[in-house]
Amino acid sequence: MNAPAAAPFTVSQRDVPEVLLSALKARFGNNCSTALVVREQHGRDESAFTTVPPPAAVIFAEKTQDVADAVALAAQHKVPVIPFGVGSSLEGHLLAVQGGISIDVSRMNKIVSINSDDLTVTVQPGVTRKQLNEDIKSTGLFFPIDPGADASIGGMSATRASGTNAVRYGTMRENVLALEVVTASGDIIRTGTRAKKSSAGYDLTRLMVGSEGTLGVITEITLKLYPLPEAVSAAVCSFPSIEAAVRTTIAIIQMGVPIARVELIDNNTVRMVNAYAKLGLAESPMLLMEFHGSPAGVKEQAETVQEIASEFGGQSFEWATTPEERTRLWTARHNAYFAAIQSKPGCRAISTDTCVPISRLADCLLDSVAEADATGLPYFLVGHVGDGNFHFGYLIDPNNPSEFATAEMLNHQLVARALSLGGTCTGEHGIGLHKMGFLLDEAGAGAVNMMRTIKQALDPHNIMNPGKIFSL
Amino acid sequence: MNAPAAAPFTVSQRDVPEVLLSALKARFGNNCSTALVVREQHGRDESAFTTVPPPAAVIFAEKTQDVADAVALAAQHKVPVIPFGVGSSLEGHLLAVQGGISIDVSRMNKIVSINSDDLTVTVQPGVTRKQLNEDIKSTGLFFPIDPGADASIGGMSATRASGTNAVRYGTMRENVLALEVVTASGDIIRTGTRAKKSSAGYDLTRLMVGSEGTLGVITEITLKLYPLPEAVSAAVCSFPSIEAAVRTTIAIIQMGVPIARVELIDNNTVRMVNAYAKLGLAESPMLLMEFHGSPAGVKEQAETVQEIASEFGGQSFEWATTPEERTRLWTARHNAYFAAIQSKPGCRAISTDTCVPISRLADCLLDSVAEADATGLPYFLVGHVGDGNFHFGYLIDPNNPSEFATAEMLNHQLVARALSLGGTCTGEHGIGLHKMGFLLDEAGAGAVNMMRTIKQALDPHNIMNPGKIFSL
Repeated sequence: MNAPAAAPFTVSQRDVPEVLLSALKARFGNNCSTALVVREQHGRDESAFTTVPPPAAVIFAEKTQDVADAVALAAQHKVPVIPFGVGSSLEGHLLAVQGGISIDVSRMNKIVSINSDDLTVTVQPGVTRKQLNEDIKSTGLFFPIDPGADASIGGMSATRASGTNAVRYGTMRENVLALEVVTASGDIIRTGTRAKKSSAGYDLTRLMVGSEGTLGVITEITLKLYPLPEAVSAAVCSFPSIEAAVRTTIAIIQMGVPIARVELIDNNTVRMVNAYAKLGLAESPMLLMEFHGSPAGVKEQAETVQEIASEFGGQSFEWATTPEERTRLWTARHNAYFAAIQSKPGCRAISTDTCVPISRLADCLLDSVAEADATGLPYFLVGHVGDGNFHFGYLIDPNNPSEFATAEMLNHQLVARALSLGGTCTGEHGIGLHKMGFLLDEAGAGAVNMMRTIKQALDPHNIMNPGKIFSL
Repeated sequence: MNAPAAAPFTVSQRDVPEVLLSALKARFGNNCSTALVVREQHGRDESAFTTVPPPAAVIFAEKTQDVADAVALAAQHKVPVIPFGVGSSLEGHLLAVQGGISIDVSRMNKIVSINSDDLTVTVQPGVTRKQLNEDIKSTGLFFPIDPGADASIGGMSATRASGTNAVRYGTMRENVLALEVVTASGDIIRTGTRAKKSSAGYDLTRLMVGSEGTLGVITEITLKLYPLPEAVSAAVCSFPSIEAAVRTTIAIIQMGVPIARVELIDNNTVRMVNAYAKLGLAESPMLLMEFHGSPAGVKEQAETVQEIASEFGGQSFEWATTPEERTRLWTARHNAYFAAIQSKPGCRAISTDTCVPISRLADCLLDSVAEADATGLPYFLVGHVGDGNFHFGYLIDPNNPSEFATAEMLNHQLVARALSLGGTCTGEHGIGLHKMGFLLDEAGAGAVNMMRTIKQALDPHNIMNPGKIFSL
């Protein structure tokens, strides 16, 4: 299942001395593993890159002090440290390209405190988003950020993740209030407070959010929560073309409708989902929408959106107000990836992640659809289109280098187009290994040098997940 | 009008060599001023500190390249550079405590581009918030962030400002999408894009927002805009006690009502405002509220809030739906500062700025009211209470050191209380000179050292507004 490793990064393993491994064994006992199967499991993620040797050891941290001690020991020997949550990152974030040890925080999975009166919760980094919502169910609150995978909150913070609800509730950027972080020297610091806003010095919280483990290990996260909406209504609407669906989305956003979710699924993908889950949806491009609010507010939003959609030829609105009906509809969206993978046995998906200003969405998306169609490579296309963010998943045969090359070419063309339209190469997946070149194109050498300068100052021995975001 | 300078900072003027002044004169001609009156005007802000010598020269920048050249010249001679917008900062941000030159960006006051389809605008840093809203009026959009003063967008970005609308629309943290920045070496970089979200590397935008001129000079800002709400309704409601008003606010927020503004004005302040503007408001604690949305949505919010308020004894709701009525009501809030100053001729106000998690607001505020009352020092009290942020303005006779000391003591007690309740020493004014000690209490030495390390890396000669936020 390995994709040909046209790796746009350098693999240069540093030595992990025996004396460090002994010290880790002594400190962590059975919570330090050097078993190959464990190391291999921690040396990969959901990206196409699988040819990098695994880390030399995996530490299973159970508390912040474990992380601090592991980092301090690694720092003594200038050995890289790679934080690991559940392994669902998409851009090679977890690969030990410079060797080193993996610190697995999945056992740090406790809710530290729920402050329901303040709409905040503090969690350990290994808590997953689904676990969090399960654990706070009785409070009447929820945490809206939902990347595809049941990712860890630590990993979601580290990659500045978002998902289907971001159009209304924002991303991890807007929803992390405070952090506890183990620095490159093994010190423990706190950033931010539980106050909703602050002007107290540099925004270290947001510097850490999205830093992909390169500036420190996140060991505790305070998040905003939201009251479960009084009323929720979901709808699916079919459109005569992708363009019609996208133009409907643009109009919804420009009118300021506080829509909670607006997801595009193209006709290819609807067909795949129908085959996979026998859903019987009309096989044309569709928008899957959700409205949150008071009963009257939801009704009003729905009416406005129906009016806009009908102007663009949207039809056969199917409404779902009970949780069961909603689950059925959202199943289509959630299954898109698996349905696509199953549509071409043995294939692997190369995912794109551009995000553009909403007015440019149609241009960006339609030209890229035409380009992909011209190659004949099958793909699925889904998008958090309310944010201008969408994902192609090019379905390649991993044993066919030319398909891989075609997918990479399409991604390059798409990113170049998105950047020329004022957008970004990554809306929510991060840079990792795969997008380092794109970051340089997007931000320019001056800004990337500023990032590098910050990294070198905070991590002088370059031990925190080195070789990610930019070359160093 | 000078307050006794119990300055909690060091004044240590560096030499500004004649050769630099000559080079600046040669490069900028009449746009470089060394006239004492101009320098003095640029060497102070709205804080109580006025005893610092003014900068050696003032450069009036007209474009980004002017800023870059001025910084590059200053960098050659390791001379401090202090960006200046309209001079409305409150914590001594503009004072030349280590000497140097002021770069006045108020002439960089052009709207660079309005992208109304994307709900974004790009402006030069000298554009003020009122000018911006005037200039975009025809688009049907508005920019909600409104600190008391008609501050510059550059200054608001640099201090991470907010104001009365932040409870619904967020602060500068949430509303700056991208920046152009002149770095300490005089290079010009860009951070962020016009895409609504991104995971592309370190969040340099948010590192710069709130950095108070210590990491670079902001020369261009891309902001989010919002559709003018279809319906706006404002209301004032009187309460039997501050506690009742605060508990009403807490309940509104906890219920998730998307209120646009909820401002507390205490009975003292209502009395002052009545005397100042002859408004005839009931002289009891009041909440001034505003609701934005569809006509039905606004009605629904208003009904919910009225129900909550009546549970806490709120009465005599006065509604305002026309712009003229709303202006009359908001006049009370906007005039609070001037009304208070006039209530004690010759006085000066020492302003506090704590912000706490909403559930702690009553505890924090009421204990601090009791403490202030016990001293007999007059004060005004207003607050963006929906965010847990409020301001005491202690009215001191600047010629009476004991009143100054009392105000400082009250502020210290208030900050200590806010921090113990999980809050911050500054919700929106920034650290500047006045709160450096508080920042250390709040963030801890580890986090402040991380800030200092970043500063030293990005500004190795410590020329960007040195001596602010932390000692260096």
